Amino acid sequence: MKPQWFKKPLHELVDALQNGHVSLPEVIASFYERTALREEQVGAWQYLIDQEDYLAEYENRREFYDASPLKGLPFAVKDVIDTAGIPTTMGSVIHQERIPDMDASCVTALKAAGGILMGKTVTTEFAYFQAGKTHNPHDAERTPGGSSSGSAAAVADYMVPLALGTQTAASVVRPASYCGCTAYVGSRGEFSSRNIQPLAQSLDSLGILTNHPLDSHLARNILLRKSLEPVQPFNSSAPTFSVFTGEVLGPIQEQMLQTLTGCQQALLAQGYQQVDFPFQDEIASLTHLHTQIMAFEVARNLVYEQQFAELGPQMQQLVQSGLALTYAEYIAALEQTQRLQQRLLQWFDEKQVDFILAPAAAGVAPLKTEGTGAPFMSRAWQLVGMPVVSLPLGYYQKLPMGLQLIAKPHQDDALLWQASQLHQLFLTEPTVEAV
Amino acid sequence: MKPQWFKKPLHELVDALQNGHVSLPEVIASFYERTALREEQVGAWQYLIDQEDYLAEYENRREFYDASPLKGLPFAVKDVIDTAGIPTTMGSVIHQERIPDMDASCVTALKAAGGILMGKTVTTEFAYFQAGKTHNPHDAERTPGGSSSGSAAAVADYMVPLALGTQTAASVVRPASYCGCTAYVGSRGEFSSRNIQPLAQSLDSLGILTNHPLDSHLARNILLRKSLEPVQPFNSSAPTFSVFTGEVLGPIQEQMLQTLTGCQQALLAQGYQQVDFPFQDEIASLTHLHTQIMAFEVARNLVYEQQFAELGPQMQQLVQSGLALTYAEYIAALEQTQRLQQRLLQWFDEKQVDFILAPAAAGVAPLKTEGTGAPFMSRAWQLVGMPVVSLPLGYYQKLPMGLQLIAKPHQDDALLWQASQLHQLFLTEPTVEAV
Repeated sequence: MKPQWFKKPLHELVDALQNGHVSLPEVIASFYERTALREEQVGAWQYLIDQEDYLAEYENRREFYDASPLKGLPFAVKDVIDTAGIPTTMGSVIHQERIPDMDASCVTALKAAGGILMGKTVTTEFAYFQAGKTHNPHDAERTPGGSSSGSAAAVADYMVPLALGTQTAASVVRPASYCGCTAYVGSRGEFSSRNIQPLAQSLDSLGILTNHPLDSHLARNILLRKSLEPVQPFNSSAPTFSVFTGEVLGPIQEQMLQTLTGCQQALLAQGYQQVDFPFQDEIASLTHLHTQIMAFEVARNLVYEQQFAELGPQMQQLVQSGLALTYAEYIAALEQTQRLQQRLLQWFDEKQVDFILAPAAAGVAPLKTEGTGAPFMSRAWQLVGMPVVSLPLGYYQKLPMGLQLIAKPHQDDALLWQASQLHQLFLTEPTVEAV
Repeated sequence: MKPQWFKKPLHELVDALQNGHVSLPEVIASFYERTALREEQVGAWQYLIDQEDYLAEYENRREFYDASPLKGLPFAVKDVIDTAGIPTTMGSVIHQERIPDMDASCVTALKAAGGILMGKTVTTEFAYFQAGKTHNPHDAERTPGGSSSGSAAAVADYMVPLALGTQTAASVVRPASYCGCTAYVGSRGEFSSRNIQPLAQSLDSLGILTNHPLDSHLARNILLRKSLEPVQPFNSSAPTFSVFTGEVLGPIQEQMLQTLTGCQQALLAQGYQQVDFPFQDEIASLTHLHTQIMAFEVARNLVYEQQFAELGPQMQQLVQSGLALTYAEYIAALEQTQRLQQRLLQWFDEKQVDFILAPAAAGVAPLKTEGTGAPFMSRAWQLVGMPVVSLPLGYYQKLPMGLQLIAKPHQDDALLWQASQLHQLFLTEPTVEAV
């Protein structure tokens, strides 16, 4: 039987290429075969580079790629991230013809490290709620989540080992939870946003989708231009965590709560310390404040889209709700956010909390008839600018469920180390059965 | 003698059109005549819309323009701000052919309020130090300042009554001081940055250049989609201010210090209260931290420019200095900034300070052989995200000198009211002699 290279995480592929266990064209063939087999069912790609063109690029600069950190391995980017000469439509009928003249800085960073762009992945309209063509890889009747729908589905379905997404509310963590891959959203401002189409500028973050926390760390290091150093553990010898169930925000599926409890107990069994989470009301407030700030800033960006009438109904509604807010209400929301943020960060310091453990979404992927799923499990952390990693740690009726780990801003490396520990504890097998 | 409409501030032109004292084509003719007379000497425009096309646009949608807040009056934007179908080169030889497909949101906001784009103004290379073709309107041997060189020169020279610029260090306040117009830089995050080319994302701000604080307020209200309400006074009955001379940061020209003292005494004579400014060392620290954070973020954006070798030597040097900083140094700089910011804001509250008065630049415009001038009088406020207004309040050898007023974040309206008070106290005549 042929080795299923497409199922290997990125860092293992790098090692295999480095050690001569496989050739790059063989790995690429594996990903394109997987894509040929699965794309019709999943619909993750907005634009796919021809396999011939991909290999020609590799052959033309083979010396560079063979010596590079990413060895010519493929990555994909969400279609709100600009790519020179390749359409970037933002999932909007208004911009179907749009072809940027420059790559986003995050794209050039991956290219400079020897990654090759395999294609653009489907986004919901302007990275908000109106779904694109993507189905959940586990069940075509269900949503892949939004807005980084294609990035999460393509990675979870093993069509590409690395994809970039963006998150303003829950647009990376939620689809990763529904599709069953690893999501990492950096601390606010962690990565360059040059030539990424914005949705709400004080909330937008770049996200990384992979099938292993060490892959996310590799991509993070490349984006930060750091040498490819190993992940760093937390400073504390016995990590301290807290649990937020999310029930104060809305109904959480029973099986999700069981997954959360299972993980919590496993951590305690490993000697982790747990402290109470005392901020139920504050997280509810932050969740509400997020909706206000997002609506105001989206309206500021999109009210003047050339063809406003061609925006989807949900986007028009969001813009209208943003226009209904006064400037004074917006500023008050920003100021209240700052106060709550300070209290939350103080608590992290006082209790020496390393991370909060919480559901990454309210449950498994809903049916597509119900939309792209609720973002309420992410809004608060996103507003406060905290780094988040989510891992697929549970299953219900063969559908994955993610748990998220949340840390203080700029604790990204330690958080990814923690996630890799959990990955080792809980995950041994890929999530989608290879067909 | 024909009325010199080009010398009128924007809000007076709106009134004159509203009251039928002049027709729009007559006003437009006045600005284009002024431009024809002066552009060869000043070199403010990167791209000028044909007068015929301008008037055709007005005639085509005359009903809309006549009923609009801006009545079809002209505005200009710095060439790092995207304009659909019109070249946006960022002052870089790399992007001479670049034609965006979308307007920046700030451009569409002004258009939707009845402004008509008269053209793009010269920027230094990627809004940093390498000068474009613009001369100081008062002396062609001297710099207009950077990076919003063309916007400041065009407004100060009465070729257009309103121009947008961007500021990462001192790129709006410094050219306004050297050229002699009013600069307003909003609180961090105050305006949409959609489709404005970034330089350093946690420092970039949109700026507004006009010849009157009330014009800046009008443009601000339009960008914020607020009804065109009048400026609001400070809450305090007797405003309290503090004075920062800037001498801790570098040499300040004697005449600039005299202008500062003159203004201070006039304010005291008006019953303003003065409190000591106790943060000399802290402002020096913030100024240094700004250079670090800017270098790191610029490197992150520009290290992968397609043709790095075609970046100017100063930009290459900035990128190299950013690459030399470690991630840990960058994060430490952000955290130190936050601590200093908190102390500064606490002092504003405790002493009930309404604004800080300071030189807008170290002195008059230097000779072009010395570059575009030093940005050190702005870095600290820009890093902390405070709103700033500068006014041309002094002259030395017929060259203007600006003073800046600095307030707490989100006190922009009160700050503009304060600036309009000073404008009334000190300024009666336009700064450039009409030729």
